[in-house]
Amino acid sequence: MPDVVFPLDSTRRFTDQEKIGHNRWHPDIPPVATLKPGDSFRVHCREWFDGEIHNDDSADDIRNAPLHIVHALSGPFAVEGAKPGDLLIVDILDLGPIPQEDSGPLAGQGWGYTGIFAKTNGGGFLTDQFPDAYKAIWDFSGQKATSRHVPHVSFTGIVHPGLMGTAPSHELLSTWNTREAALIATDPDREPALALPPEPNGAILGSLSGADFDRVAAEAARTAPPRENGGNQDIKNLTKGSRIFYPVFVDGANLSVGDLHFSQGDGEITFCGAIEMGGFIDLRVDLIPGGMETYGVSENAIFMPGNTDPQYSEWLAFSGTSVTLDGEQRYLDSQLAYQRACLHAIDYLTKFGYSPEQAYLLLGAAPIEGRLSGVVDIPNSCATVYLPTAIFDFPVAPTASGPVTIDPGIGAPRSSA
Amino acid sequence: MPDVVFPLDSTRRFTDQEKIGHNRWHPDIPPVATLKPGDSFRVHCREWFDGEIHNDDSADDIRNAPLHIVHALSGPFAVEGAKPGDLLIVDILDLGPIPQEDSGPLAGQGWGYTGIFAKTNGGGFLTDQFPDAYKAIWDFSGQKATSRHVPHVSFTGIVHPGLMGTAPSHELLSTWNTREAALIATDPDREPALALPPEPNGAILGSLSGADFDRVAAEAARTAPPRENGGNQDIKNLTKGSRIFYPVFVDGANLSVGDLHFSQGDGEITFCGAIEMGGFIDLRVDLIPGGMETYGVSENAIFMPGNTDPQYSEWLAFSGTSVTLDGEQRYLDSQLAYQRACLHAIDYLTKFGYSPEQAYLLLGAAPIEGRLSGVVDIPNSCATVYLPTAIFDFPVAPTASGPVTIDPGIGAPRSSA
Amino acid sequence: MPDVVFPLDSTRRFTDQEKIGHNRWHPDIPPVATLKPGDSFRVHCREWFDGEIHNDDSADDIRNAPLHIVHALSGPFAVEGAKPGDLLIVDILDLGPIPQEDSGPLAGQGWGYTGIFAKTNGGGFLTDQFPDAYKAIWDFSGQKATSRHVPHVSFTGIVHPGLMGTAPSHELLSTWNTREAALIATDPDREPALALPPEPNGAILGSLSGADFDRVAAEAARTAPPRENGGNQDIKNLTKGSRIFYPVFVDGANLSVGDLHFSQGDGEITFCGAIEMGGFIDLRVDLIPGGMETYGVSENAIFMPGNTDPQYSEWLAFSGTSVTLDGEQRYLDSQLAYQRACLHAIDYLTKFGYSPEQAYLLLGAAPIEGRLSGVVDIPNSCATVYLPTAIFDFPVAPTASGPVTIDPGIGAPRSSA
Amino acid sequence: MPDVVFPLDSTRRFTDQEKIGHNRWHPDIPPVATLKPGDSFRVHCREWFDGEIHNDDSADDIRNAPLHIVHALSGPFAVEGAKPGDLLIVDILDLGPIPQEDSGPLAGQGWGYTGIFAKTNGGGFLTDQFPDAYKAIWDFSGQKATSRHVPHVSFTGIVHPGLMGTAPSHELLSTWNTREAALIATDPDREPALALPPEPNGAILGSLSGADFDRVAAEAARTAPPRENGGNQDIKNLTKGSRIFYPVFVDGANLSVGDLHFSQGDGEITFCGAIEMGGFIDLRVDLIPGGMETYGVSENAIFMPGNTDPQYSEWLAFSGTSVTLDGEQRYLDSQLAYQRACLHAIDYLTKFGYSPEQAYLLLGAAPIEGRLSGVVDIPNSCATVYLPTAIFDFPVAPTASGPVTIDPGIGAPRSSA
Repeated sequence: MPDVVFPLDSTRRFTDQEKIGHNRWHPDIPPVATLKPGDSFRVHCREWFDGEIHNDDSADDIRNAPLHIVHALSGPFAVEGAKPGDLLIVDILDLGPIPQEDSGPLAGQGWGYTGIFAKTNGGGFLTDQFPDAYKAIWDFSGQKATSRHVPHVSFTGIVHPGLMGTAPSHELLSTWNTREAALIATDPDREPALALPPEPNGAILGSLSGADFDRVAAEAARTAPPRENGGNQDIKNLTKGSRIFYPVFVDGANLSVGDLHFSQGDGEITFCGAIEMGGFIDLRVDLIPGGMETYGVSENAIFMPGNTDPQYSEWLAFSGTSVTLDGEQRYLDSQLAYQRACLHAIDYLTKFGYSPEQAYLLLGAAPIEGRLSGVVDIPNSCATVYLPTAIFDFPVAPTASGPVTIDPGIGAPRSSA
Repeated sequence: MPDVVFPLDSTRRFTDQEKIGHNRWHPDIPPVATLKPGDSFRVHCREWFDGEIHNDDSADDIRNAPLHIVHALSGPFAVEGAKPGDLLIVDILDLGPIPQEDSGPLAGQGWGYTGIFAKTNGGGFLTDQFPDAYKAIWDFSGQKATSRHVPHVSFTGIVHPGLMGTAPSHELLSTWNTREAALIATDPDREPALALPPEPNGAILGSLSGADFDRVAAEAARTAPPRENGGNQDIKNLTKGSRIFYPVFVDGANLSVGDLHFSQGDGEITFCGAIEMGGFIDLRVDLIPGGMETYGVSENAIFMPGNTDPQYSEWLAFSGTSVTLDGEQRYLDSQLAYQRACLHAIDYLTKFGYSPEQAYLLLGAAPIEGRLSGVVDIPNSCATVYLPTAIFDFPVAPTASGPVTIDPGIGAPRSSA
Repeated sequence: MPDVVFPLDSTRRFTDQEKIGHNRWHPDIPPVATLKPGDSFRVHCREWFDGEIHNDDSADDIRNAPLHIVHALSGPFAVEGAKPGDLLIVDILDLGPIPQEDSGPLAGQGWGYTGIFAKTNGGGFLTDQFPDAYKAIWDFSGQKATSRHVPHVSFTGIVHPGLMGTAPSHELLSTWNTREAALIATDPDREPALALPPEPNGAILGSLSGADFDRVAAEAARTAPPRENGGNQDIKNLTKGSRIFYPVFVDGANLSVGDLHFSQGDGEITFCGAIEMGGFIDLRVDLIPGGMETYGVSENAIFMPGNTDPQYSEWLAFSGTSVTLDGEQRYLDSQLAYQRACLHAIDYLTKFGYSPEQAYLLLGAAPIEGRLSGVVDIPNSCATVYLPTAIFDFPVAPTASGPVTIDPGIGAPRSSA
Repeated sequence: MPDVVFPLDSTRRFTDQEKIGHNRWHPDIPPVATLKPGDSFRVHCREWFDGEIHNDDSADDIRNAPLHIVHALSGPFAVEGAKPGDLLIVDILDLGPIPQEDSGPLAGQGWGYTGIFAKTNGGGFLTDQFPDAYKAIWDFSGQKATSRHVPHVSFTGIVHPGLMGTAPSHELLSTWNTREAALIATDPDREPALALPPEPNGAILGSLSGADFDRVAAEAARTAPPRENGGNQDIKNLTKGSRIFYPVFVDGANLSVGDLHFSQGDGEITFCGAIEMGGFIDLRVDLIPGGMETYGVSENAIFMPGNTDPQYSEWLAFSGTSVTLDGEQRYLDSQLAYQRACLHAIDYLTKFGYSPEQAYLLLGAAPIEGRLSGVVDIPNSCATVYLPTAIFDFPVAPTASGPVTIDPGIGAPRSSA
């Protein structure tokens, strides 16, 4: 096990630790540690909501989740010699839930959660169909996850960091703030919001204090979206054994990481769709000097996934096209097509006895695959979602004898609010 | 080999065959054959442009491709006893290029083609960046495809029908025509068009003639988009060994199939992005009476892919987000995110010596995977495209020593027009 | 489809065809065709018993199978310029059952067979436990095989040639005959025999006749064992997409091929354990001059399997060690360990309702994997056999509720003799 | 992380720990802990030679390795309610090297070793060709292993316990001792020995002492071979996510585990062929009462491998037959056939610059696959060994241009003795 360069104590808040991380993007957040190219190191990660979500049968915590405090990120980690224009190589050597702690009140201590966020507090991929808050708790046993809230499924997690990236330059940060502000301005009161502007309230900025803190808090970008620096990409295949190549925008690269997921389906569709947890990640860093120009990588990370993702060989797939539920034809809208594909899968699963919310939570958390199948056949995009049949403990394919009926158990808790 | 219920003679036009297929969707196109549930049968398929595209080094045929005559479909095949509300089970037993003919002037005779369509004649996924017509010819050798126009790659094809589906009911057809007309009306002169209305010119409608022909030709839907009946889904994993469940909208189900692809990347991004060919497909049909209601499948086909797709274990992946090339922030637009991911991959490949068009044609034809990675992290969708590294005969991953330089050969032919 | 250089008419015996193949190994059997390096070509293959085994419910044909006439081989095919010391590259482009003929009396016409050979006529891997003759007929549907004699299973075939190889030199042939005669001499009356000496009776030697025929028939090696030239290796993974490198021992290399299998388990344990059939194979040949010395390949072929073998992701595995059924401890005997592993699998499957013979036939024909797991832990070897659980239509893993009971149907026919 | 029921301190000898394990099989060794069905628990494991092998560039420790002290096993662990005749279900939830210790003098602290044992001290699969002692040290980085002694390779480990099993009954133990003594008696002075009789010298027997210790030490079976209770099966696929079903022979089942391997090739061919290490393993136990009779499992464990083993999609395979290096024909000897296949692979790898010993060590440690390909084609068995080409950092397939030459580095250390 490599040396821990960012330790966390599970019993203390993210702001009350030995080293303080951050929850905004800004070039002026000072590094918490400096590594050399070739170094391996361990990083502890706090679950993204800093312990606000509980292992219980209520979704009130999801309903009231404090979105202004996310994501609790570990870092930044500076790499000696890194210069703007380089590519930063990051190898994910290992990662997992909080080691040595298999029970406790903090997500990552043997359990994690998936939430459907309320339309009035974050929303999600299918928020028009699912406007209320729901939650599912998942228990970890080795590599497998099961849930009392979504019974009859068990799957091997593809553990990955939902969020990792390098610090933006001042110029890049300004670009982000400008373009996102322009979008927000088109419908500033929309719920859910179109985008999130800088938010000093709740900002955590490492060791910054005083006037520096105030200045940076006012400028720093929120961590929700993926951007040129990687960031909250929520790519479920960025797992153990993966190598990522990040553009470097500031001296030292200033890598940060967090938002660990025990498992996730492509798209993380319930917004907090993955199985969220705290834990650890072991990384190794290296540099390709001048690599951004050499390889034409300037606007997004590229990566090579590992080769130990769980293998499933039988899938049940649902397609969707870019026609709205109201029957309106949209033009090549793959976002809509994937929504329709997911809704088809949800409708299907309810025929076996699941509630729509259970099915939705499952699609967010299980290793489902979401594909852009057709993107040119005007006017309809075709997107597909693939469910591995082996995760169900009942036969899930269509047959002439019709679906079996499962006991949905206590169901997914809904917020009382 | 099952009995051939729809034979084609490679030397004759699609309209000059023993049995006449169709290139529009309409419930009144009479079946060419009737099968029993449980029957296996072979169908010959004409390449989608009926032989208009040639095995040469010019893209003029792509530039002038007669879009009003596509897709040349085999069928419809009626299934005894099928009723609206049933699910039609279709097993793809086998498929491939034209058997016994490994050379000749017709795509499918040992070769196939991929085209970048001109913005003024069809367009494509990246038509703003690639407005002109280009072509690549691919040669088949067993399961592998190679191209003189895109050298240094060789890949195992995932042979599949781009288009298969059941006939719409009159009601469903009317819905299609109404909703697509409404979309067209928002920008009727757009190029490429937003959608294609019914087009009597070039219509092929099986054995229909006279007034029936004229009526149906005026009403029948074009075959370009995927819709509730399956249709032109262009799902590359709908291959040998797959089982599909189609909704049945008319008595007999009236299944049609065509647009065979030797290989395709997710999205078929160059529009004619797959490797197009004629060939054969062996199918077996069965029914789940009342299955649409039983399983909640009414608006799109569901399917289970086969288990013999080529295995690749190392991938190089590119992400994209929903920011336009001009820097405008769009809201959760996965179509745009995938465009950006593909453009990143193209930029990358040009660093090795490929022209942008060669790279674009390759992404359309090779077994690349397109994933909806993040669809909820406002305001940015994150889409990813995965290239199997083993298809290249040179090392394609980034290294400190920089990219090798390949000889791009004669390049992809561009239309003279 | 490449040109057919070795055509067969399904209605005629192997010795009554346009070109005559062979069923013995000898350097003096004249080539039936000469190819150039880089050539692709199609070869028809006769099922190994030349049609003596029938699609019926009797095993008498297995009981009386004429072993002196096997294997019916297509070839030899000479390659221009091939010299002793070269490596012959053979690509398997495609292969399958007899095209265009999906029913008929000849194995390969839509069906194939697996036999348990009687101890007194060939024997098999478990001949002491299964001394009598049994047969199973398998029906092909696309890539899948099913059997009325072994119900409740369906699997994707890994089609491959059981036998392919280059001609031996006179010197190598002499080595074979000498060493095998020495083995036979240790127990000349053993049943089954230890090895098979040259057998003029039944020999087929291509175009040879007269004194040449007689001389060669007296010297030529039987085709049963794999040897330095490849030969009857029965490697189930030598399938579509594979590349093999054969040592060249004679001018022209003189490649021959036959014994096609629709599917086989590792080891082909029932002797005629694969699903035997006639069919076609498309090959491409090339040369590495002097490759035997360059790569140290002189005594056995090397190969690279294709990447489209069926994927199964859940397996049930049985181990065995080198202790006999009578409890005698043998020293690191992996052959025995695999026998014990297979017997354990058979015992297990009988708990679900199969007869031991059905289970044995299944292990021979289905894509099971046989591994040499431990070969150094004195005194016990450990071998393991892996069954893909998805080939069964019932749950086959152990559970606290015990095995389900299947209907074994009519069972596997046993010979009346 | 489950509770640790068998803790080890890396700085102390195996006999100087809080709980004392064992290195012999006997029903009277008292359990160190008792679990309930359904319990999960963590076990620390000592590397099999209790720290005698060092991370250095000498093989003298291998030459003089004290074979009488192996294997250092953790346990036995009793399961409440387990009765003879039950099946014990063991799920491997997780396992790995010594957590929190990535450097240090003990194998498992960030490194492991593979040894070629001298013919006079243990021997190995190819001991006649490799009679001397050699060693390779492997460094762990996340899931990957590399070695200064075998450069130019890097592979993902398939971590597994080489040894796990239930305690034998007195009757079963007696059977083992009797049959193995009979084998030894056939050649009592053979080197390496045919089998190892009970050996009181070096015996570790948990908490036993005094007369009980002496009695049990005289009777207890050595742990080298796999037997009816599982034991030293060295099955590389018994990894994370696997479920094993062990026969229960004594009340409580008395499960023991040890001999962790970071990686291993099929067969563990160099004897100490795996990458040996200490570490941890998380297990969950459960029971199928009466399961031995119900499922016909009495003589060997059965198991279901996990689904996260590393995926490789391109392999280079070597075959071997049962002819000795001296040209003697043996009858269906798969042990010999696999030796010949491995020797062919070794010969091949030396053409690239490796020493034979480096190649041999590599085959033992890397995730190679060993298959029983043909076991019935008299007189020759055919065995095959598959090397994943992606573990090499150079092109390893044969080409017309011949092999590249690698720098073999310092080579594998050989013992001075």
